[in-house]
Amino acid sequence: MIGHDSKKTYKAAIIGAGSGGLTMAVGLSNFGHDIVLIEGDKVGGDCTNVGCVPSKALLHAALVGEDNPLGWVRAKRDDLAQREDHEMEKHEKIHLVRGWAKLTPKSGDHHVVLVDGPNGQVEVHAENVIISGGSKPIVMPVEGLGAERVLTNENIFELESVPGTVVLVGGGAISIEMATAFGDLGSTVHIVELAGRLMGNEDPLVSSTMQEVFESRGMQVHLGTSIERFDEATQTAHLTNGATIADVDKVLIGIGRRPALGDLRLEAAGVETTKGGVVADTWGRTSVDGVYAVGDITGNTATTHGANSFARRTVRAIALPLPKVGDPRVIPNAVYSRPQIASVGLTVAEVDAMAAGGRKRYVKQLTDIDRGFTDDLEHGFIAVDVERFTGKILRAVIVGPSAAEMIGMFTIMIDHGIGLRKLFGTVHPYPSYSQAVGFLADEFATETFRSLPQEWFALTKAKIANRFKK
Amino acid sequence: MIGHDSKKTYKAAIIGAGSGGLTMAVGLSNFGHDIVLIEGDKVGGDCTNVGCVPSKALLHAALVGEDNPLGWVRAKRDDLAQREDHEMEKHEKIHLVRGWAKLTPKSGDHHVVLVDGPNGQVEVHAENVIISGGSKPIVMPVEGLGAERVLTNENIFELESVPGTVVLVGGGAISIEMATAFGDLGSTVHIVELAGRLMGNEDPLVSSTMQEVFESRGMQVHLGTSIERFDEATQTAHLTNGATIADVDKVLIGIGRRPALGDLRLEAAGVETTKGGVVADTWGRTSVDGVYAVGDITGNTATTHGANSFARRTVRAIALPLPKVGDPRVIPNAVYSRPQIASVGLTVAEVDAMAAGGRKRYVKQLTDIDRGFTDDLEHGFIAVDVERFTGKILRAVIVGPSAAEMIGMFTIMIDHGIGLRKLFGTVHPYPSYSQAVGFLADEFATETFRSLPQEWFALTKAKIANRFKK
Repeated sequence: MIGHDSKKTYKAAIIGAGSGGLTMAVGLSNFGHDIVLIEGDKVGGDCTNVGCVPSKALLHAALVGEDNPLGWVRAKRDDLAQREDHEMEKHEKIHLVRGWAKLTPKSGDHHVVLVDGPNGQVEVHAENVIISGGSKPIVMPVEGLGAERVLTNENIFELESVPGTVVLVGGGAISIEMATAFGDLGSTVHIVELAGRLMGNEDPLVSSTMQEVFESRGMQVHLGTSIERFDEATQTAHLTNGATIADVDKVLIGIGRRPALGDLRLEAAGVETTKGGVVADTWGRTSVDGVYAVGDITGNTATTHGANSFARRTVRAIALPLPKVGDPRVIPNAVYSRPQIASVGLTVAEVDAMAAGGRKRYVKQLTDIDRGFTDDLEHGFIAVDVERFTGKILRAVIVGPSAAEMIGMFTIMIDHGIGLRKLFGTVHPYPSYSQAVGFLADEFATETFRSLPQEWFALTKAKIANRFKK
Repeated sequence: MIGHDSKKTYKAAIIGAGSGGLTMAVGLSNFGHDIVLIEGDKVGGDCTNVGCVPSKALLHAALVGEDNPLGWVRAKRDDLAQREDHEMEKHEKIHLVRGWAKLTPKSGDHHVVLVDGPNGQVEVHAENVIISGGSKPIVMPVEGLGAERVLTNENIFELESVPGTVVLVGGGAISIEMATAFGDLGSTVHIVELAGRLMGNEDPLVSSTMQEVFESRGMQVHLGTSIERFDEATQTAHLTNGATIADVDKVLIGIGRRPALGDLRLEAAGVETTKGGVVADTWGRTSVDGVYAVGDITGNTATTHGANSFARRTVRAIALPLPKVGDPRVIPNAVYSRPQIASVGLTVAEVDAMAAGGRKRYVKQLTDIDRGFTDDLEHGFIAVDVERFTGKILRAVIVGPSAAEMIGMFTIMIDHGIGLRKLFGTVHPYPSYSQAVGFLADEFATETFRSLPQEWFALTKAKIANRFKK
C-alpha cells in the first residue's frame, strides 16, 4: 500500500526497490511482517527500468527486426515497470514510501530512517534497515565531448532513433550486448577498450572469440586505447593511439559501475564502507547490528540474480532464528550477446592463482560437434577448468547459443559437488550443443583413468603447493 | 581400411554402420581390437544420411532462409557422410566390408557372418557379432495415392523443390519437425494423426501446446482421422472424417518405425526377436552367447544418442572383464521443432501408473517469466513430475527455446539423485529461461516445508499402494 504510519515500528525499512529490495520486501512480507519499502526513483530499480529488461528486449527487437525497436522496448519496459509498481502499491504488508532515504545513528531500541519525499521529510521506524540502493554507471569526462552525445545505461533506452555510428567505450558486458543490438539495428559500431582484450574479467578465449565475432560483422575493436578528445565540429573521436573515428553520433560509456552510496549518510550511522561499497557478509550483515545490505551496493554481487540470491539469505537471517551456517550458492554470469556468454565458479584470477599442476583445462569447440555443423555455427566453445584426478569443477565458461541456459548444468554440478568424472556416460540429446559436455567428460575420463596414480600424485603435489602459497 | 581377411577371426563383426555400429567399431578399436564393420548402404546410417543430420540442417536452412535450402541440406549431409566414410576407410583397426550380412548358426569356437557384397559373398569370422542394423519407416498403403507423391525420411531430403501443399501423416517427432521446417519454407502444411492428439507418447500439455503453435502459423491439424483415399486427378486427400485436403503435392508418412530385421536370418542363428526387435538386455546381450544387439534394431532405444549410450555399455561388456553391474544412464528425448520439445525420466505412462497421492506435478509457463517477456515468447513451459516429500524427479518435459539444452539439468539431476528439494536456492542467470526451474523448486519447497508430516504420510501411503499394484 502507499504510505506508512510514522509512529509505528516496522519489522524492516528497505531502502531501494530494485532486485535486492523487492526480494527483501516480498520475502519478509511472506513471513507475515509489515515492512516499509523506500524508493526515490522507479520501483523495479535499474534492472527493470534501465538494465536487464530493456537491454534484453532491445536485443530481441533488433534480432527479429521490430519496426520501431526502441519504441517497442520502452513499451515493454514500461509495461513491466507499471506491473511491479502496482504490485507494491496494492500489497497489504508492503508500505511504499516514495523518496530518498538517510540513515540516522541508532539511539533507542530501533532504527530511524529519514525520507525526503515529494511532501517533505518523514520518519520511518524499523527494527531492521536493509540498504539496497544499487549502483550507478561510472562516467569519465572526455575533452570536447558534448553531453547530449553521451549515453549510459540510464538514457540509452530513451533514444528516439538508431544512431548511425556509435562508439562503445569499455569492453565489458554492457558494450558486448549493445554492440550486438546496434550491429543488428544497422549502426556502425566501434568498441574502445583500455585493456588489451574485451571482457577482461572473463577467460581470454572469450575475449578473442568475441573479438572475432564482432570483426566478422564489420565492427571495429580498438584495444589498449581510449578516447583522448572529441571534436564536435567534425563529430570525430580521437583515440590515444592516434586512430580516429569519424561521424560519431553517440558515445556509450560502459566502463563500470560504483555503489550508489549517495546521501545515505552511512558513516553517520556507523555503517562501514569501502570503495567497493557497503561491507556486508554473505547474510547481508553490516558493521551495525540490525542494518543489512544486499545487491550492487555491496561488493558481493553485481547482477540481478545475485542480488536476489543474497537477499533470500538476508530474508532468512532476519525472519528465521536459525544458526547462520551454509555458504551462498554459486552465482553464474551471463551476457546476452550473440553468441551468448555464460560462466560459473571461481573467477579466472582465482583459478590462475592455483598451482597449475593440480588443475586441467578441457575445451570443446561447438563448431566441431554435429549441432554446430547442422546450424552452420561460426563461433562457440565450452571450456572447463577442473581439479586434476577428481574432476571437481573449478570454473566453466560457455560461448554459444543458449549459453545462459546450458550454464545451469555446471551450476548444479558445482552446488552439488558433481565433478566431470561423474559425468562420464551422461547422455545428451543428439544433436545438441550439450553433447560438448559429454565429450569433455569423455576426454577427462580417458586421460585420468589411463594414469590414475600419476594423476593422484600431481594433485597431491599441487595441493601442498597451494597451501604454501597462502 | 577397406576389406578384411576372410581367414582371420576378428574380435567382432559389426552389422550396420549407423550410430550404434560406429560407436561399437570405434570403441572396440580404441581397446586395441581389430574388428569388421559391415554396411550395405551408407556409412553413418539413417542419422547421418536420412535422419537427424539432414532434418536439423533443413530446420536451420528454413529458419535462416537459405536460397536453395534442400540443396544446401544435401551438401551438408554429403559432406558429413563422406567424412565418416573416409574415417572408417582409413582406420587401421576397422575393416570395412560393404554388403548385406546374414548370420549363421554357431558351429565352432567363433561366429561366421556371410556378407553379400558387390563382388559376391564373403565370410567374416569373429568372436562376437553385433547386430546394429537400425530401423526402417513403416509405410501404410493409401488407396489411390501415387508412389511418386509419397515421402518418408528416406527420400524427403532428395526433394528438388519445396512442395506447395504437404500432408504429414502421423503426429510424432518426424511430422513435428517437418511441419516446422516446411512451414518456414512456405508450404501449406496439414498434419493428419489417427490419435486424438499430437505427440501421443509425450505429456498431453506438449500435445496441446504444439497444436496451438502450428495452428497459430496457419497449419491445419486433423486429429482422430487418417487418409481414406487419395484422388490423383484432383490431388485431393479424403480423410476418414469426411474432410478433404486439396492440391496436395506430397504426402509424408511418419507413422512409426520397425526394426530392420530384414534378411539377417536371426532365427536360424537362434537369436530371439519379438515384434519390437532383437531381444537384448541393457548390455546388448541377446539370447545367443557372443551375439549382441544395439540401437533401433532392439526395442531398447530409438534415438542416435540412445544407440550411442547402449553401444558404449556393449563395448565395455565385450572389451572389459568387469561384472555387469550398473543401470544404464537415463536417456533424454528431443524434438528440434520451434519451440523445441525435450523430456527425460520415466515415460508418461509409467508416471500415470504410479499412485497419484505419492507424486506432484509442477508446471511453469515460460511466457510468465521475464525472459519470455523480453523475448515476446508465445508458447513454452517446463513441467516436472516429482515424488512427493522427497522431490525426486520422476519426469521432466520442456517445450521452449533451447529445450534440448535445458533438459541437461534434469538429466544430471536424475542420474545423480538430485531432487527438486535440493534445487531450492540454486541460482540461474537473470533473465534466462532456466529461472523457471528455480521457480518450480521454490514452489515445491514452499508447499512441502509448510506441511512436512502430511507430505511424508502421503508419500508413504502411496508407496504402499504402488506395492499392491505390482
